[in-house]
Amino acid sequence: MALTVVGSIAFDSVRTPFGERERMLGGSAVHFALAASFFTEVRVVGPVGDDFTEEHLSVLSERGIDTGDIEHVAGGQTFFWRGHYDHDMNVAHTDETQLNVFADFQPKLSPESCEAQMLFLGNIQPDLQRDVRRQSSASFAALDSMNLWIETTRESLVAAIREVECLLLNDAELRMLTEQPNLVHAARASMELGPEVVVAKRGEYGAALFTADGSFAIPGLPLEDVRDPTGAGDSFAGGFLGYLDAVRIGGSHDQRALRQAMAYGSVMASFNVEDFGTERVSELTEAEIAERLAAFKRLTHFEETPIAR
Amino acid sequence: MALTVVGSIAFDSVRTPFGERERMLGGSAVHFALAASFFTEVRVVGPVGDDFTEEHLSVLSERGIDTGDIEHVAGGQTFFWRGHYDHDMNVAHTDETQLNVFADFQPKLSPESCEAQMLFLGNIQPDLQRDVRRQSSASFAALDSMNLWIETTRESLVAAIREVECLLLNDAELRMLTEQPNLVHAARASMELGPEVVVAKRGEYGAALFTADGSFAIPGLPLEDVRDPTGAGDSFAGGFLGYLDAVRIGGSHDQRALRQAMAYGSVMASFNVEDFGTERVSELTEAEIAERLAAFKRLTHFEETPIAR
Repeated sequence: MALTVVGSIAFDSVRTPFGERERMLGGSAVHFALAASFFTEVRVVGPVGDDFTEEHLSVLSERGIDTGDIEHVAGGQTFFWRGHYDHDMNVAHTDETQLNVFADFQPKLSPESCEAQMLFLGNIQPDLQRDVRRQSSASFAALDSMNLWIETTRESLVAAIREVECLLLNDAELRMLTEQPNLVHAARASMELGPEVVVAKRGEYGAALFTADGSFAIPGLPLEDVRDPTGAGDSFAGGFLGYLDAVRIGGSHDQRALRQAMAYGSVMASFNVEDFGTERVSELTEAEIAERLAAFKRLTHFEETPIAR
Repeated sequence: MALTVVGSIAFDSVRTPFGERERMLGGSAVHFALAASFFTEVRVVGPVGDDFTEEHLSVLSERGIDTGDIEHVAGGQTFFWRGHYDHDMNVAHTDETQLNVFADFQPKLSPESCEAQMLFLGNIQPDLQRDVRRQSSASFAALDSMNLWIETTRESLVAAIREVECLLLNDAELRMLTEQPNLVHAARASMELGPEVVVAKRGEYGAALFTADGSFAIPGLPLEDVRDPTGAGDSFAGGFLGYLDAVRIGGSHDQRALRQAMAYGSVMASFNVEDFGTERVSELTEAEIAERLAAFKRLTHFEETPIAR
């Protein structure tokens, strides 16, 4: 079992109604890898600059994540994002983006990263995602993206989606990509492009899964403390794909594994938002994960009692 | 078992991306009563005008609903609403409202309606809701409202909420009412006003339930055909309270019944939106309801498998 992730490794400066942090470790590959590391072996591919220190690397390596394919660009600076959230924490406002070493990033996967059976293409420029997909021999590849790429590089994004088994997008992005206002139709249109598994992420409302065999939906856990939603979607993807890799998912017909993976994805996302950046997930225990899975089960369980009239 | 509902009886003219209808039967009391009629005895209280005919009345009476407390105001016109939905069907746009006979409505409950063990106060002016609550001897009363009353008659609405056991609101309205951006805090603040059961309606995303004993959440069923969401919240309330009345809910501690009721509410709302006005729910069968309850169970079911590493 091994899972390779390509995506951003970043410093994030974030302000929410509940506090702020300067230049904390973040990025899609980092959030994903930390969440997935509780389930399987993870290898991170991505560029960093001189400002990325041993201390930052140790956040990953202490969780057993393989950092051998993190490329140190001498003289460069790490990708930087500054943003804030107002009271509607479903909406991120970007204040500043510095691509830095990401501007000239040419992914080069080591043989070990190429051979991982599962691949996650985090939200980066779709041509880079295609480049990585071609290097990889993964039997199951998943892709995340965002409205920016749908608007500016649609053709390239669609080409990238054609080459993966699983697509993860926000529900609004799925509708935008397919130009279908109805989510069921949007999911079906997405599957027609190639992916056999489509996940619609819905922020605090949870997530929905679509395959040819059926659909599944899980609500978000009502949380008392939501301090920083940055990275929640990547933590979801980490729990989801990490679990699927651990049980060696064979394809979209394994509904039992896919549903369980959706629950673990939701668990990891729920932890992610409870504190800033990686602060909560990097300190998690397996016991806390099991406890929260049980909380999701309690949250959603009902019996099927006939009408009692 | 009996359930009294007070609310609007209306003619609705609705346009959505999937069609339009002129002056179809609608209103909170009508949508609620039709949904609840599959579970328990229902009595409707509300005013209508000369334009409300035997044919309209028969939509209710054919479902066994008691219409004895529907007040015919001679020379008056029935409440009228005209609205439309664009591609985001979660947002209703009001184009015209004619209060008509509702402008001078003074609810007068018959002894039978007063004695029903359960009462639903549909979304009308909160002073009218308080008036009805005082006439009723129901042991369990539930109240729905909307942003208009939160903004224009907050004190009166809060007084009405203090007098009921259950509050149903959209999640955004719960946040607005309590001025708490976090839904868990908003639900708790609502319970501190009086209700022991709080339901947050979330449109296509489903609904969440809060009591002192715990919370429950159910996602919306992904539907291929959503033609008209008007009345979905009232159909939800009808399935929810209809089931609770049928099983003689004793209070907020009966989590099993409350969860089951949330599922039945979701079932009835999912049918409501599949066609215009009352067209789908008025023609439903118990077999279709049972089948859809099973579909919700399949949609949300997952096992609780430990991490397999």
